[in-house]
Amino acid sequence: MKAEIIAIGSELVRGQTIDTNSAWLSRRLLEAGVPVAYHTAIGDDRKAIKEAAKLAASRVHLVIVTGGLGPTKDDLTREALAELCRRPLVENKAARRDIETIIKRRHGQVLPSHLRQALIPRSARHLKNPVGSAAGFRLRWGRATIVVLPGVPREMRGMFEEGVLPWIKKSATSRAAILTKTIRTVGVPESGVDQRIGHLMGRSNPDVGTGARDGMVDVRITARGKSASETRRLIGKTEAEIKRLLGDAIYATGEDTLEGACARLLLEKKKTLAVAESATGGLISTRLISCPGISKSFLEGIVAYSNAAKVRHLGVSRNLIRRYGAVSAEVAGAMAAGARKSSGADIGLATTGIAGPTGGTKSKPLGLFFIAISSKDGTEVNEYHFRGNREQIRSRAAITALNLLWLRLK
Amino acid sequence: MKAEIIAIGSELVRGQTIDTNSAWLSRRLLEAGVPVAYHTAIGDDRKAIKEAAKLAASRVHLVIVTGGLGPTKDDLTREALAELCRRPLVENKAARRDIETIIKRRHGQVLPSHLRQALIPRSARHLKNPVGSAAGFRLRWGRATIVVLPGVPREMRGMFEEGVLPWIKKSATSRAAILTKTIRTVGVPESGVDQRIGHLMGRSNPDVGTGARDGMVDVRITARGKSASETRRLIGKTEAEIKRLLGDAIYATGEDTLEGACARLLLEKKKTLAVAESATGGLISTRLISCPGISKSFLEGIVAYSNAAKVRHLGVSRNLIRRYGAVSAEVAGAMAAGARKSSGADIGLATTGIAGPTGGTKSKPLGLFFIAISSKDGTEVNEYHFRGNREQIRSRAAITALNLLWLRLK
Repeated sequence: MKAEIIAIGSELVRGQTIDTNSAWLSRRLLEAGVPVAYHTAIGDDRKAIKEAAKLAASRVHLVIVTGGLGPTKDDLTREALAELCRRPLVENKAARRDIETIIKRRHGQVLPSHLRQALIPRSARHLKNPVGSAAGFRLRWGRATIVVLPGVPREMRGMFEEGVLPWIKKSATSRAAILTKTIRTVGVPESGVDQRIGHLMGRSNPDVGTGARDGMVDVRITARGKSASETRRLIGKTEAEIKRLLGDAIYATGEDTLEGACARLLLEKKKTLAVAESATGGLISTRLISCPGISKSFLEGIVAYSNAAKVRHLGVSRNLIRRYGAVSAEVAGAMAAGARKSSGADIGLATTGIAGPTGGTKSKPLGLFFIAISSKDGTEVNEYHFRGNREQIRSRAAITALNLLWLRLK
Repeated sequence: MKAEIIAIGSELVRGQTIDTNSAWLSRRLLEAGVPVAYHTAIGDDRKAIKEAAKLAASRVHLVIVTGGLGPTKDDLTREALAELCRRPLVENKAARRDIETIIKRRHGQVLPSHLRQALIPRSARHLKNPVGSAAGFRLRWGRATIVVLPGVPREMRGMFEEGVLPWIKKSATSRAAILTKTIRTVGVPESGVDQRIGHLMGRSNPDVGTGARDGMVDVRITARGKSASETRRLIGKTEAEIKRLLGDAIYATGEDTLEGACARLLLEKKKTLAVAESATGGLISTRLISCPGISKSFLEGIVAYSNAAKVRHLGVSRNLIRRYGAVSAEVAGAMAAGARKSSGADIGLATTGIAGPTGGTKSKPLGLFFIAISSKDGTEVNEYHFRGNREQIRSRAAITALNLLWLRLK
């Protein structure tokens, strides 16, 4: 079984929104043994939707359509598919009840536009929306099954996990097992990773590829076998080899993030943390706090943007700032030590730097950062020169700080 | 003239990489008067590339292909298009010179794999790569023009700007001016927006559409006229109508973000701000600090995750926390007032809530948030019930807090 994903929305083909649904669905489908052969994006245009679905149904067995199920008049996916399959749209009772429940919970009034979202083609299978009001559906047309999901990522994901994936796993045609494993590294550039594991790439099974983002490199192993256990064996062999060659740079496997790896180690080792940020502006705190359960370890974060805040909340001395400047190794070290001391945490982590676009000087150029980590064993300060725009520089500084934390913890 | 974009790369249909090129190209093409009707993504498969290009050339006049021009054996775009057009691949002299120059600059040795990148179909027009080694090309096939660009975004963009856009602008068929304007709203749900402006949708020129994300709704106006001034007139009329109907909910037009709108107002009105966050965990601070120049207004952010931090940095009384709990209107108000007082800022903004997945109780369920804003005019506290997973709840709380700030400033 092969699949095609059709994303619907004029904002997509106008370039106003980047389609992330198709990539997410492709990963989930591949993991379930269904490779995706095509992504198509088209506007909210009834004729175009009809034609795209028709073409897709002629070349693959599973067509997943996302988007165009909203309450407004430019949401035309329902109508287009009903027309294609020559079935009338009928109100689905369960979908209507769900919509009424949601609107009542929001203390709103049920409008005709809301109820449009309960319409599905006659004899299509209703797919419950676990978080929103748009009903999804599944129908057979010719030799293909067409699954229609909302475009809002949260609703699409929920509906796929609950209403589509179990059905795909049951269906007999998807038994060939294709599995992907991601090994996540930090601290080694892509060319360095390539030097160490390049000889494993270019093979077809398992296939090994790399992808870089934010200065971190992900290594992906994709294998196909007759059964899940055969596929796992294939992946396991290559994974062991990659771990041997890249061991020191690997912070996680699978979907774990760098902050997730830090949070796991903090909780495992029962260490508490306080973070003091200047130009990263809360990015480190917000990434760490995205990890459930972190409240046991994360005590506080101080976004000490002004010098006064550095003095007041972190106990950095005014003299030190005057003498070395707010962006200096000395102040970074004092911030990390101050965060630790003020909160009583085991570890203090601090950043200070120039993210731009202005504020750089000859001696302290744009992109200069000092990142410090402090624990009872002492305070370590490192100097970095990050490149890119304000957003990229801040993101790289936050990742580097998390990497320092991870190295200290592991 | 209409266009189709074909993105090539197995990493795309496997979901390992999100295609951002197609959205970027769509925006640039639309600005030049060429609407894009389809995005297609396919793997590195010679037959699939050939078929996709053939289909595209049959339904639009301009086909832009990105990716699959690298030096490795899985880069097959050149071969597939040569086969489609039945022309042999020949080495382009200018492309070869460019490759040799680049490799020498990198102190590398010119390998046969590098020279593959100088091959283009016979009588195709070579497109110079201003930053990398893969040669692009342009050729006519049937009634369509096919433009082939590298997949690396920086190379693709450079080649498009220098070698493709000037040609599109010269071509007579693209004179009609198409413009898009986005009006950004917050605080009114999509169904409410539809109620107010639904009668403007479903018209073809200007076309009005809505898109929701993170609880905010964007309204997009797209118009086409014989000249840019006629198009602007068309947009202006509809824009005025939308502003009249949605006025109170509009925080920005164009690409401005909610935090950008807040930062602009803070700087314009010379107001300073301090932020105290509990479960949003730095999200508000980090969004505001993403805005260049904000250091004049943003004094400090306190991620007061622990109760001790709320007491120490924000002066919230231990008694208050004991009596009402950390997640309470009373503590939210004290945090906002405390942030303002401790920093000397004009405005204090604070959040406290339960983002989950655990920590909810019957009286204080998951998703309960109190958000407070404090200024010399007093302290306002609001209660919210957000839904979703931890990430979504935090994001909604941060947006709601920024909306409160924006309402106070505007």
